[in-house]
Amino acid sequence: MTPQTSVETALPAVPLTVEGSSVLHQMMRFRRPAWRSLSAAARTEILEEAAGALGEMERAVEGRDPALSAADLTGPTAPAVRQSAVYSLLGHKGDLLFLHFRRTFEDLSRAQADLARLRLSDYLEPASSYLSVIELGLYESTAKVYGELAARGVEPHSPEWKRQIEEVLDRQRSAMAPRLFPRIPDARYLCFYPMDRRRGETANWYTESMADRQRMMHEHGLVGRRYAGEVRQIISGSIGFDDWEWGVDLFAEDPLVFKKLIYEMRFDRVSAVYALFGTFYVGVRARATDLGAILG
Amino acid sequence: MTPQTSVETALPAVPLTVEGSSVLHQMMRFRRPAWRSLSAAARTEILEEAAGALGEMERAVEGRDPALSAADLTGPTAPAVRQSAVYSLLGHKGDLLFLHFRRTFEDLSRAQADLARLRLSDYLEPASSYLSVIELGLYESTAKVYGELAARGVEPHSPEWKRQIEEVLDRQRSAMAPRLFPRIPDARYLCFYPMDRRRGETANWYTESMADRQRMMHEHGLVGRRYAGEVRQIISGSIGFDDWEWGVDLFAEDPLVFKKLIYEMRFDRVSAVYALFGTFYVGVRARATDLGAILG
Amino acid sequence: MTPQTSVETALPAVPLTVEGSSVLHQMMRFRRPAWRSLSAAARTEILEEAAGALGEMERAVEGRDPALSAADLTGPTAPAVRQSAVYSLLGHKGDLLFLHFRRTFEDLSRAQADLARLRLSDYLEPASSYLSVIELGLYESTAKVYGELAARGVEPHSPEWKRQIEEVLDRQRSAMAPRLFPRIPDARYLCFYPMDRRRGETANWYTESMADRQRMMHEHGLVGRRYAGEVRQIISGSIGFDDWEWGVDLFAEDPLVFKKLIYEMRFDRVSAVYALFGTFYVGVRARATDLGAILG
Amino acid sequence: MTPQTSVETALPAVPLTVEGSSVLHQMMRFRRPAWRSLSAAARTEILEEAAGALGEMERAVEGRDPALSAADLTGPTAPAVRQSAVYSLLGHKGDLLFLHFRRTFEDLSRAQADLARLRLSDYLEPASSYLSVIELGLYESTAKVYGELAARGVEPHSPEWKRQIEEVLDRQRSAMAPRLFPRIPDARYLCFYPMDRRRGETANWYTESMADRQRMMHEHGLVGRRYAGEVRQIISGSIGFDDWEWGVDLFAEDPLVFKKLIYEMRFDRVSAVYALFGTFYVGVRARATDLGAILG
Amino acid sequence: MTPQTSVETALPAVPLTVEGSSVLHQMMRFRRPAWRSLSAAARTEILEEAAGALGEMERAVEGRDPALSAADLTGPTAPAVRQSAVYSLLGHKGDLLFLHFRRTFEDLSRAQADLARLRLSDYLEPASSYLSVIELGLYESTAKVYGELAARGVEPHSPEWKRQIEEVLDRQRSAMAPRLFPRIPDARYLCFYPMDRRRGETANWYTESMADRQRMMHEHGLVGRRYAGEVRQIISGSIGFDDWEWGVDLFAEDPLVFKKLIYEMRFDRVSAVYALFGTFYVGVRARATDLGAILG
Repeated sequence: MTPQTSVETALPAVPLTVEGSSVLHQMMRFRRPAWRSLSAAARTEILEEAAGALGEMERAVEGRDPALSAADLTGPTAPAVRQSAVYSLLGHKGDLLFLHFRRTFEDLSRAQADLARLRLSDYLEPASSYLSVIELGLYESTAKVYGELAARGVEPHSPEWKRQIEEVLDRQRSAMAPRLFPRIPDARYLCFYPMDRRRGETANWYTESMADRQRMMHEHGLVGRRYAGEVRQIISGSIGFDDWEWGVDLFAEDPLVFKKLIYEMRFDRVSAVYALFGTFYVGVRARATDLGAILG
Repeated sequence: MTPQTSVETALPAVPLTVEGSSVLHQMMRFRRPAWRSLSAAARTEILEEAAGALGEMERAVEGRDPALSAADLTGPTAPAVRQSAVYSLLGHKGDLLFLHFRRTFEDLSRAQADLARLRLSDYLEPASSYLSVIELGLYESTAKVYGELAARGVEPHSPEWKRQIEEVLDRQRSAMAPRLFPRIPDARYLCFYPMDRRRGETANWYTESMADRQRMMHEHGLVGRRYAGEVRQIISGSIGFDDWEWGVDLFAEDPLVFKKLIYEMRFDRVSAVYALFGTFYVGVRARATDLGAILG
Repeated sequence: MTPQTSVETALPAVPLTVEGSSVLHQMMRFRRPAWRSLSAAARTEILEEAAGALGEMERAVEGRDPALSAADLTGPTAPAVRQSAVYSLLGHKGDLLFLHFRRTFEDLSRAQADLARLRLSDYLEPASSYLSVIELGLYESTAKVYGELAARGVEPHSPEWKRQIEEVLDRQRSAMAPRLFPRIPDARYLCFYPMDRRRGETANWYTESMADRQRMMHEHGLVGRRYAGEVRQIISGSIGFDDWEWGVDLFAEDPLVFKKLIYEMRFDRVSAVYALFGTFYVGVRARATDLGAILG
Repeated sequence: MTPQTSVETALPAVPLTVEGSSVLHQMMRFRRPAWRSLSAAARTEILEEAAGALGEMERAVEGRDPALSAADLTGPTAPAVRQSAVYSLLGHKGDLLFLHFRRTFEDLSRAQADLARLRLSDYLEPASSYLSVIELGLYESTAKVYGELAARGVEPHSPEWKRQIEEVLDRQRSAMAPRLFPRIPDARYLCFYPMDRRRGETANWYTESMADRQRMMHEHGLVGRRYAGEVRQIISGSIGFDDWEWGVDLFAEDPLVFKKLIYEMRFDRVSAVYALFGTFYVGVRARATDLGAILG
Repeated sequence: MTPQTSVETALPAVPLTVEGSSVLHQMMRFRRPAWRSLSAAARTEILEEAAGALGEMERAVEGRDPALSAADLTGPTAPAVRQSAVYSLLGHKGDLLFLHFRRTFEDLSRAQADLARLRLSDYLEPASSYLSVIELGLYESTAKVYGELAARGVEPHSPEWKRQIEEVLDRQRSAMAPRLFPRIPDARYLCFYPMDRRRGETANWYTESMADRQRMMHEHGLVGRRYAGEVRQIISGSIGFDDWEWGVDLFAEDPLVFKKLIYEMRFDRVSAVYALFGTFYVGVRARATDLGAILG
C-alpha cells in the first residue's frame, strides 16, 4: 500500500449529490405465439384493459399514489411527478420497455405490481430491468464547500460540518427540483444504458483526487452542453440498487444523436479511461393507445 | 516470486473470525401465468397453506428446529434464533426473496425443504440463492493477540498458541452473541449483495500485510459507524459455501441510505481498490399475511 | 492522472464520420418440433405467406416505406435503399439471419414488426440481434481539416469551425452516397461480427493521439484493399445503439476469404493491440423462395 | 519475449502426477411441479426403482462393472473402487448432486447412462457436471528425481530418463493406491469447487520455476495438514476433461471447517496469487432410502 | 504507441497456412422425457431412420455430395473425405456430439440440414457447435520463404512475391493432402476444445516477432511429437468462422493421454503465456447402430 498524504485523508473524497425521483426500467419480451393463440375477442379485451391502465400511468401527475397508505409516507417531500412511458424496443433484448418515474421505491413497487396484475402481463416475460434514483452530482459545489469548511477549520463529519453540508444540499435540491423530479421527456427515441466508473488495478476513478475528478467531469459536461438542443439526458444513480453504478437515459428526436454524443464523449478522459458500459437499449416511444398496433 | 521477509512468514496472515447463524437467501420468480390459470378457490387454498407455514417461519424462535433428530446435534451451542422473512423484490431478478436465519446448514436444508413442500412452490422458480454464515472479523483482536503471543515467544500453531487463540475466540463469541445470532431486523427495505476482496495481479488483498489490512478495515468501519442509526448491516462469510467471499445485508427504513452508505464507502481504500461486487437485490419487507395481495 | 500537453487538448480527438442506412441483424432459432407438428397444408400456407412477404423485402427499393406516416419524416434525405436478405446460419447460434437495410430506425422498427406479424414468426425464436448504422470513418479528411482550421486559427466548436466541418461532411456524404446507402451484396456467404476498440488500462485506443490512430487505420486499410476483389466489407457504427462499438459484415463467394482477411488483419497494430471481437456468425444466402427447402 | 536461461529449458517444468479413479459430479435440478402432478402410486413406483438402483450404486465395490465388455478393458489395473453417492444441495444451483467414482471414463459413461435410464430422470434436469480423475501431484519426488537424473547426466525424455521416471511413478502408484482409488468418505457434508492456477500477464503459475512452485505447494500442504482430522480432501485433475484444471472435494462433519480451511489457505502465496475459483457447491449426504423424504 | 523498427514492418507478420476440410461440431442435448413419452414402436421407427442416415454419414467417402448442384462447385479441388461421426458425451454439456468433415461450408450446411430433417432431431436440442476448417500452420516454411524473398529483394505483396508464395502453398497443399483432408480417426475417445492466442495488454501473441513465434511453436511441436503414438491431433482454424481462433480435436484410446499431453504443453512458453482455452468436451465414439442402446 502506497502511503497517502495527509491532504488526501483530511478531506472527504465523496462528492455531494442530490436525489430525486425513483426510476424503474422494465424490459419485457412479448410471448407472441401464446398471444396469437387467443381469440380476437380475448385479445381486444386484454388490450383494452392494458390501454386503460397504461393510459392512466402515462399521464404525468404530481404527488404520490393516493392508494398508498399513510405508513408509506417516507421519501422526498417535493412534489414528485408520477409518470410511466412505454417504448417499442429494436432488436431481441425485449419487445417493450416500461419506464416509471415515481416518488419512492414503494411507489415503484406499486407500479410494478399494477403492471403485473394486468392480464397482458401473462404475455410479457421480464427480460431485464434497472432500478435507480435520479441524481445530480455536485462536483463544483462540493469542491467549493469542502474548501470553505477546511479554510474555516471545520472538522469533517462534525455537527457543524454536517449542518453546513445539509444547507448546501437543501439549496441545491430546491434550485434543481425540476431536474430532480422531471416529467418523462416527449422525444420519439430513447437510449438507455448502465455504466460504471472503472476501479482497475492502475486506472481507478475512486482513488483519483477530488480536483482531478472535478476537472474531468467538467470537461465531460462541456461535451454534453454542445448537444443541449438535440438530446435530453437524465442520469440516475444505482449504487446499492442495481448492478451498475449509474443509469443513463437519453431522449432525442433523431437517434443518430445518441451515437454522435456518446462517440464524442468516449474521447473525454473520464470516459476514455474510466467508463465501463453495460447493455444498450434503443426504443421508439409508444402510446398506450398504440399497444394494439404494436402487438399486432 | 519476490522473496518474503521472515516477519511476513513468521506470523499467520489470517485474521480471526467468529461465526454465528447460518443464512440462506432464496430469490424466486413467480410463475404468474400458471398461477392465474388456477381457480380462485385453488389460489385461496394454496395461499392459506403458504401464509400459515410462512407465518410460523417469520416468528423469531430461540433454539433449534425440534423436528431435527438428535443425530443432527452439531453446530454452535449458543441459543441461535430461528427466523425467516419474505421480501418483495424490485425489478426482474426475482419476485420474492426468502431470507432464513438458522442454527446450522442442516436447519437451512430443512427450511428449504419445508418451503419446497408448499404447494405455492409449484409457482415459484428458483432464480438465485446465497449460502453463508454470519461472521464478525476481529482484525483488532487478531493484531493484539498475535502480537502478544509473538512477544511471549509462543510458536504459531503450537498447542499453547491454539489454546490462547481459542480463548480469545470464546470470549468474543460470548461478548458478540447478540450480533452473531440476531433476529432479522424489522426494517421496511432490504439490500443484499455478495462481494469479494480483489486478488488482482498487482492489487491483491491477500498479499497485503496484516497491519495494512487492519488499518484499511478500521477506516472502513468509521464510515459504517456514521450510518449507525439509519442502517443495520449484517455481514456473512461464504468462502467455501458460495461463489463470492462475503454476503452483505443492509436493512433500512429509507432505501436512499443504501446508496449513500455504499457510495461513501466506495472511496475508502479497502473498497476503492479491493472490493468486487456481485448482483444487488433490493426488496420491500412483506408479511406472510400480505402474500395474497402481493401475488395478486 | 498524467498531465496532458496543450496540443492534446487543443484539437478535438474525435474523427469525423458520415452515416448512411440503418441496419438490423436478427438471428432466429427455428422451433422445428412445433413446426413439424403442423399439418402439411398449414405449413404450405405459412410458407407461402412468408415467401410472399420476404420476397417483397428482398427486392432493393429506393426511398422510404410508403406505409410510414408523414410524421416519421426524419433521417437522411438521400435516396436510401430499402432491402432485406435471409441467410441460413451454420451451427447452433441460430437457424436464420435476417439482414435489413433501411433509411431510419423507424423503418427498421416497421421491418421488425412486419416480420413478427408473419405466422412463420410463431416458429422463430429471437436468439440475438444487432442494431447499427452504416458508417464511414474519415481519418484522413479529419486530420486534414482539423489541421487547416488550426492553421487558420479557427477555434474548435466555434460557429465558423462547425460550418467548415459541416461542409466537409456534406461533401463526403455526397461523394460516398453509394457506399453509405448500398444494396445488400449478392455474395453467397455472409460473415458478421461486432467489435470494440480496446480501452484497457495501458492499451487504450481512445487515449492514442489522432496521428497514431490515423496511421494505424491507414495500415489496416491497406490490408483490406488487398482483398478488394474477393470480399465486400460493410462497417456499421453501433455506439449508443448496441453492446459493441461497430458491426462488421463481410460478403464473399468463398468463405475461406473471411479467415484469410481477418487473420492477416489480426497482425495489424490496430487489430493486434486494440480490437476486441464478439460472436461470429456465418451464413449462406437464401432466397425467399428457398425457405420451404431450408425449413424442411 | 524475455530470454530464458539454459537451466530453465534444460529440465522439464512439468511436475509428475499419478492418477486413480475417474470421477463424475452431476448436479441436477428436480422438476418438482411435474413430479407433483404424478399420482402417489406413480411416485412410489418411480422412487422404489430409483432407491433400488441408487442403493446398488452407493455400495463401494472393488473392481470393474461386470456388465462392461472385454473390449472395454483399458485403464488402470489397480482394484478401483466403484461407488456413487447422492447429496442434497443447498441453494438454487441444483437439488441433487450425484458423485460417481469409477475405474475408467467408460464406466462413468455407463453410470451416467444407468442414471438416465431411471424413470426418476424424467424429473431431473442436468444443471451442471464435472469430469475429472483423482490425482496426486508429486512435487517433492519430481524435484528429487529430476535432480538425480540431471546429476547423472541422463538426457530428459531419453529412453533411460523415461524408464527411471516410470519406475518412480509405479512406486508412487503402489504406495498411494488407497488415496488414488478411495471410497467416497462417509462425512455428512460435501463442498465441491473447481479451480485453476492463474496464467495472468504478470502472475503466471506456469512460468514460475519448479523450485518456487514446489516451495509454495509445500507451504500450502502444511495448512491442509492442520485440518487433517476435521476434513478429508480429494483432488482430481481435469485438464483436458473439463473447463477448469482441478476439482476439489472436501468432506466434513461440520461445514464451518470448509470456510476455515479455505480462508486460511487463501493467504498462502499459491492461493493468494495463483488460485482462481469456479462455482461452489455444498450438499448434505443423502442415502438412496432417503430419496422419498428429500423429494417430498 | 511505441515505435516499431523497420525490420518489423518490412516483412509480413502473418505465417502461411494451408487449409483442408470444413468441419462442424454439433453438441446436442437429448430431450429424454419427450422421447420416453413415445410408444416403443414410434421410437423404433425413429431410431431406424436415424441409424440408416447416420450409417451413411459415418462411412468415409471421397469427393463431394452428389446431391449438391453444379452451382456449388467452389472450394478445394482435392478429393476431400466426406464423413461424420457420433460421440456420446460425458457430463451435462450435451448428450451427443456430431462431428462432420466436408469439402466446403455448403456441404456442411447440407449435412446440418440432413440431420435436422431426421425425426430424431425433434428430440435433440442444439447445445453448442463449432465451425472451422482444418489448417496447418507453416511457421518453418514461412520463415524460410520470407527470408529468401527478402534476400532476393522481392517486395512483399508484389506480383512476384504472390506468385512465389502461392507456389510454396501449392507444394505444401499437395504434400500435406492426407493431413488436410483426413478421415475421422477411429479412436474410442474424443477431446474437443477451442482456443485463442492471447492479445493481452502486455503479453500479446500478435505483436511478437515472427522469429519468436516460430521458436515457440517449434518447442510446442516437440511436446506433441512425444505423444505421436498415443494421440492423434487435428487442428482447425476458425478465425472469421466462430468465437475462438482455433479448434483442437484429440483422438485417443486412453483419455488419460488428453490430460498428460495438455498438462505438459501448458508449461510450453506458447501455452503458458499465450493460450486461452474455451469449453472442453469429452466423448466416447458411438456407431450409428449403437444409437438405440445409448438413447435407452
